[in-house]
Amino acid sequence: MGLTELKQRVAELANLGGALDLLHWDLETFMPKGGVEDRASQVALLGRIAHEWFVADEVGAWLVAAETEVRGLDPTSDDVRAVQVLRRDFDRERKVPTAWVAEFARTTSLAQHAWRDARAGAGFAHFRPHLERVLDARREYAGFFTPWKSVYDPLLDDFEPGTTTADVERVFAELRPPLVALVEAIRTRGRAVDAGFLDGDFDEVQQTEFGMDVLRRMGFDFDRGRQDRSAHPFTTAFSRNDVRITTRFDRACLSPALFGSMHEGGHALYEQGIAAEYARTALGRYASLGIHESQSRLWENVVGRSRQFWKRFYPELQRRFPTLASVPIDSFYRAINRVAPSLIRVEADEVTYNLHIMMRFDLELALLRGDLAVADLPTAWREASRAALGIAPPDDANGALQDIHWSGGAFAYFPTYTIGNLAAVQLFDAAAAAVPGIPADIERGEFGALLGWLRENVHRHGRKYEPGELLRRATGRPLEAAPYLRYLHTKYADVYGLG
Amino acid sequence: MGLTELKQRVAELANLGGALDLLHWDLETFMPKGGVEDRASQVALLGRIAHEWFVADEVGAWLVAAETEVRGLDPTSDDVRAVQVLRRDFDRERKVPTAWVAEFARTTSLAQHAWRDARAGAGFAHFRPHLERVLDARREYAGFFTPWKSVYDPLLDDFEPGTTTADVERVFAELRPPLVALVEAIRTRGRAVDAGFLDGDFDEVQQTEFGMDVLRRMGFDFDRGRQDRSAHPFTTAFSRNDVRITTRFDRACLSPALFGSMHEGGHALYEQGIAAEYARTALGRYASLGIHESQSRLWENVVGRSRQFWKRFYPELQRRFPTLASVPIDSFYRAINRVAPSLIRVEADEVTYNLHIMMRFDLELALLRGDLAVADLPTAWREASRAALGIAPPDDANGALQDIHWSGGAFAYFPTYTIGNLAAVQLFDAAAAAVPGIPADIERGEFGALLGWLRENVHRHGRKYEPGELLRRATGRPLEAAPYLRYLHTKYADVYGLG
Repeated sequence: MGLTELKQRVAELANLGGALDLLHWDLETFMPKGGVEDRASQVALLGRIAHEWFVADEVGAWLVAAETEVRGLDPTSDDVRAVQVLRRDFDRERKVPTAWVAEFARTTSLAQHAWRDARAGAGFAHFRPHLERVLDARREYAGFFTPWKSVYDPLLDDFEPGTTTADVERVFAELRPPLVALVEAIRTRGRAVDAGFLDGDFDEVQQTEFGMDVLRRMGFDFDRGRQDRSAHPFTTAFSRNDVRITTRFDRACLSPALFGSMHEGGHALYEQGIAAEYARTALGRYASLGIHESQSRLWENVVGRSRQFWKRFYPELQRRFPTLASVPIDSFYRAINRVAPSLIRVEADEVTYNLHIMMRFDLELALLRGDLAVADLPTAWREASRAALGIAPPDDANGALQDIHWSGGAFAYFPTYTIGNLAAVQLFDAAAAAVPGIPADIERGEFGALLGWLRENVHRHGRKYEPGELLRRATGRPLEAAPYLRYLHTKYADVYGLG
Repeated sequence: MGLTELKQRVAELANLGGALDLLHWDLETFMPKGGVEDRASQVALLGRIAHEWFVADEVGAWLVAAETEVRGLDPTSDDVRAVQVLRRDFDRERKVPTAWVAEFARTTSLAQHAWRDARAGAGFAHFRPHLERVLDARREYAGFFTPWKSVYDPLLDDFEPGTTTADVERVFAELRPPLVALVEAIRTRGRAVDAGFLDGDFDEVQQTEFGMDVLRRMGFDFDRGRQDRSAHPFTTAFSRNDVRITTRFDRACLSPALFGSMHEGGHALYEQGIAAEYARTALGRYASLGIHESQSRLWENVVGRSRQFWKRFYPELQRRFPTLASVPIDSFYRAINRVAPSLIRVEADEVTYNLHIMMRFDLELALLRGDLAVADLPTAWREASRAALGIAPPDDANGALQDIHWSGGAFAYFPTYTIGNLAAVQLFDAAAAAVPGIPADIERGEFGALLGWLRENVHRHGRKYEPGELLRRATGRPLEAAPYLRYLHTKYADVYGLG
């Protein structure tokens, strides 16, 4: 009594969530533009039902009953953990007034429109009042969860349960000086890397087929998923048995499709790998955004930008794109790992990427704390960019208006990208230590052992463990900067001949 | 008070319906096979919510209040009609116990699986017990609506409001003898028609592009719709602003894509043409299946299989498919209008098609009345086929197992196809009488005047009028066999030189 009803409600919410996700997926992939208004109404309606069904009084009563019911059970059992997870989610959602949710949806919807217009030419001033409202709303949201040490804590906790602002600050403090030093070493002492041949004219059918082949070899199950195109690549899972990724193809440039497919493929392998017995239960979701990103980055960067990987796949790439025939594999390898400070986060290399993140973290923390006014954000962005990367954007479209996140209210989201980068290396190291044949496998295009280790140590657990515990169980360590820095130093000493 | 709440509930149900339709569309087009179980749960859940929201007690109370509210209003006003339509739907749905709905969903789901297996080799005996259960359930359903003259009446009324079994019998009685005579005249006195060149090897990209071009010229708005592939072509409308059709392409045969696109395009123009002010209201749906089919048949057959149409489009078809270069337009025109009794309804020509329908009508009526046992259906089918078409299927896959309808519980659906065929001709005649330039327009590939007349006289009205009244308003006449028979006699005297 209690647990059974809870489980049934969670299963219904999973079905509702799957339908909602399809509405979003279709919006990004195939929906004709005329459908946009009705789609917004459909999404709002299903979202409202899902919210009401979850925060209902009877769910609270079932939870209390279920807590009594599981008392005395093995504390590591799935049922105990499922009740904990639901208690956490329920309490969080109940603390947020329904009126706030509705108002926030309206505020961010308007802000996203304004953001698009601002980027398209209307300028930051057009976006400013909207961002101010979003920021106020987010501060109000944080207020629902007092007490906390930092206003940033409750926001971060939504994305990365159990991780605090202080945790992020500690890791970032470890990471920043060596990263800056590495960028400087590359700039002053690294040999030149030419990446010009990655631009040109690349048949899109060949790009698609190559990407599909890589995905298949990675272990992506096309019977339980598919790949389509969209302007902004993403992964969505209607259930573990229907996981869809999208990729952006660019005739003029190979990189988006090559690494985009592996990135989204990494996300998708995670979703396809959550234990079947967790399907439509409270544990049948990913552990956190950081853990999700660790899976995409592991495949995109640690595997996909490795020498081993291209030993197997470069000949095939050359066969598909004849202009690469005269490019030696070493030149290709160095080109796809070229390091250069740039203005755009999503195009940044492995080394400078985290500098983009840390700069955003500093800015959003200052905004939330009230140490930085929205009106001063463009200037602060330029200064931060100059400090972090040595360059400043010529306009706000490439500066304070660059990312969609804040307009949608996603403050405290950025750190999860860096958490993912660090965790990717920690997890790969642990896998390679447990199964020493993995690097040799990659050279042969065999990923079964690596995927098997990830399935066993990460994917299958879903939400059973908080991200910190999941990482400790898989690697024996908490999240750390050192392994990532070692990985970068070794790799880029080779790429740039830093000796 | 009452009407406002009703309208809001109807708008919410329209949003829910749009989401449900997307779940179905995706299932038929892009869903990976692993998604099938979860999709069934998602569909069941949203269907359950929609049903509960509609038959809720408060809706009954709002209806009573709304009926008082609209008393005294102009009886032809939209609000009056909306309340009538909702009263009709509400009373019908309330008469059906929720337990019956759930049981029927289970019964037909199992029956459809069994039907597939039976067709794939397990044989009719495998399907028989399922069909018996579906039939029993349908009889029980009819029982909820007593009194009626025929057990078939309440089932037919679901698809074709206001039309009775006696109406169908009367029209079919008019239709049958002249059709049989025409088939016989063609068989004995018609000159030979060669259609062999419609089979071959036809590039699918060219097929797609030709179909898209025709759809565009017909007036299909690709900003408010799209075309995809599926095994079984269909049209679905998530709203009037997002109407999707699917087409089946066959490399070896031109016809499915050519006429399939026009058929589904006709359905889609109807949905795109319902008045914008009816969106998400009780009147914002099609009038009946028969009226829907009249739109698809009008474009597919009356326009798409006419001499005028191909005068404009045949040169383009020849350009795309060089094997047709040596085929004169007259031969092509006769080939696409070749009449030959065949076993499969969906491949039947315009003349014999209705014989397939009438035979199914007779059989399902006998089944429902208890005059025919399910066990005897295969034999009865063979005899009916021999009587109607002069040929009998060699096996049940081409006989009693041919159509999916009965396995899904869709008894009394078949007559709507013939109603559509007749209404298509009546409507086209009325349009051509009102706008004499229409045939000449078609020769130039101009369809604006025809579409305009259909929009004004059929599409925009949605469910404002019952199908019978809609037809009388548009054509001045009730549904009749005579115009259709005149159309067939004129056309096929020409095609077959019956003089």
